[in-house]
Amino acid sequence: MDIKEIIAKNADKVEEALKGYLSLEDKQYGILYDAMRYSVLDGGKRIRPLLTLEFCRMYGGSYEAALPFACAIEMIHAYSLVHDDMPCMDNDDYRRGKLTCHKQYGEANALLCGDSLLTYAFEVASANEQVSEKGRVMALKALAQYAGHAGMIGGQQLDLLGEEEKFDFDTLLRMNAMKTGCLIKCACLLGCIAAGHYDFSDAEKYAKNIGLTFQIIDDLLDEGTEDEKTTFLTFMSHDEAYNYAKELTEEAVASIDSDTLKAFAKYLLERRI
Amino acid sequence: MDIKEIIAKNADKVEEALKGYLSLEDKQYGILYDAMRYSVLDGGKRIRPLLTLEFCRMYGGSYEAALPFACAIEMIHAYSLVHDDMPCMDNDDYRRGKLTCHKQYGEANALLCGDSLLTYAFEVASANEQVSEKGRVMALKALAQYAGHAGMIGGQQLDLLGEEEKFDFDTLLRMNAMKTGCLIKCACLLGCIAAGHYDFSDAEKYAKNIGLTFQIIDDLLDEGTEDEKTTFLTFMSHDEAYNYAKELTEEAVASIDSDTLKAFAKYLLERRI
Repeated sequence: MDIKEIIAKNADKVEEALKGYLSLEDKQYGILYDAMRYSVLDGGKRIRPLLTLEFCRMYGGSYEAALPFACAIEMIHAYSLVHDDMPCMDNDDYRRGKLTCHKQYGEANALLCGDSLLTYAFEVASANEQVSEKGRVMALKALAQYAGHAGMIGGQQLDLLGEEEKFDFDTLLRMNAMKTGCLIKCACLLGCIAAGHYDFSDAEKYAKNIGLTFQIIDDLLDEGTEDEKTTFLTFMSHDEAYNYAKELTEEAVASIDSDTLKAFAKYLLERRI
Repeated sequence: MDIKEIIAKNADKVEEALKGYLSLEDKQYGILYDAMRYSVLDGGKRIRPLLTLEFCRMYGGSYEAALPFACAIEMIHAYSLVHDDMPCMDNDDYRRGKLTCHKQYGEANALLCGDSLLTYAFEVASANEQVSEKGRVMALKALAQYAGHAGMIGGQQLDLLGEEEKFDFDTLLRMNAMKTGCLIKCACLLGCIAAGHYDFSDAEKYAKNIGLTFQIIDDLLDEGTEDEKTTFLTFMSHDEAYNYAKELTEEAVASIDSDTLKAFAKYLLERRI
């Protein structure tokens, strides 16, 4: 199967599982649940869940053990977008052609919706009975560390600073490693943990390389639209940046023994959206 | 020792522990850490941590086992205040005589600060090595459930609705049980879990009664300032409400075998701030 087909098939299955988690029924505070569903369902390529599921499969774990962790990481990704889109942050009206959560449901509901999704991620992960209690504690700690002040949120904070001041190359790398890299790495580690495979060295190498590639390609795709901000194109030409990403992708491919993960790394390099 | 002295002494110890957790040093994104410290430290009577610590002590657990859970629940309480104060929610400029987080650090930083505190609570609780992995999974699940869409956040959502429509008495009870009651109950349960005491029936009874008392007394102290909103005074006179709280307090006192917790229940009934 072609990697695009794998991604699409995976996204359908993750969508189904997320729907199950979000089939919450309560008339009284329906708007909060509506906002949660609106912000998580029908969204994106689900690349973080794919990583969790495929790392677990590669290390001999079951699909059922990985799925709750995959959904948890996607909920955290979705919450970060809801809060990131809000007027006090990026102030975006649209995401993937749909009104952003705060445009659709109002700011207060968007704030609470993001808080709920973040909190629910921990509930879903802690309730993953296919994974040992030892594994669940590791997974919950990893989720909190990689999503928190020293991970994703710290990266968003650095990104805000980047609107006011120029970064040097090391700070740019660091911001990217935190803002997008941490959650990608966490997705890979959760797959290892779900399989009971607690040696994360290959997963960390792979994650680091595809995370950076992901960000470089983002910068190339946004070329010309973000003149104010420091990006990879502040420090190198388009071709230099692409070749840098290509090297990282080759390292990622070499670090891991899964055809799907190898193809996925190449897909991230060649993507056009 | 008098209960006020116990509360003050406890608050000092919790402050010290929170300072330890928040002694994060990083020049680059110092403002996020500053905002976290600003929002958690030097704040309030730490009544939720007191409940966690005292339930653990009563059931024979160690102080060291309860303290990380006590700090985690206080971080969740602090995050909820930071987000609740924001312009799109209550739009408050001051809390306890200090500028609110968004007035001091700006809205974007307040949003990220709240997200960080919520996430850090899960990290701190998951790293509590004095508690078994089984206990930690229970604690993390309880934190997520009681703080989430079916708990505290759901209660905040209901509270927002209450600004637009009148509640009946059952809905008022439900909103209070969710908005303030859930975190108080969670604080008590975390103390039980830290002690390895997994029968929560007494703790749940005690928590339910003091949680409701807390809210009734809040409504009495705010009498006349919240004419638009449904409160206990919508359904009963001042004296009726106080007598209702008194009955609840008597039930709380009868349900539990700890002088401190008995005195604390009475303190909540008689508080004037």
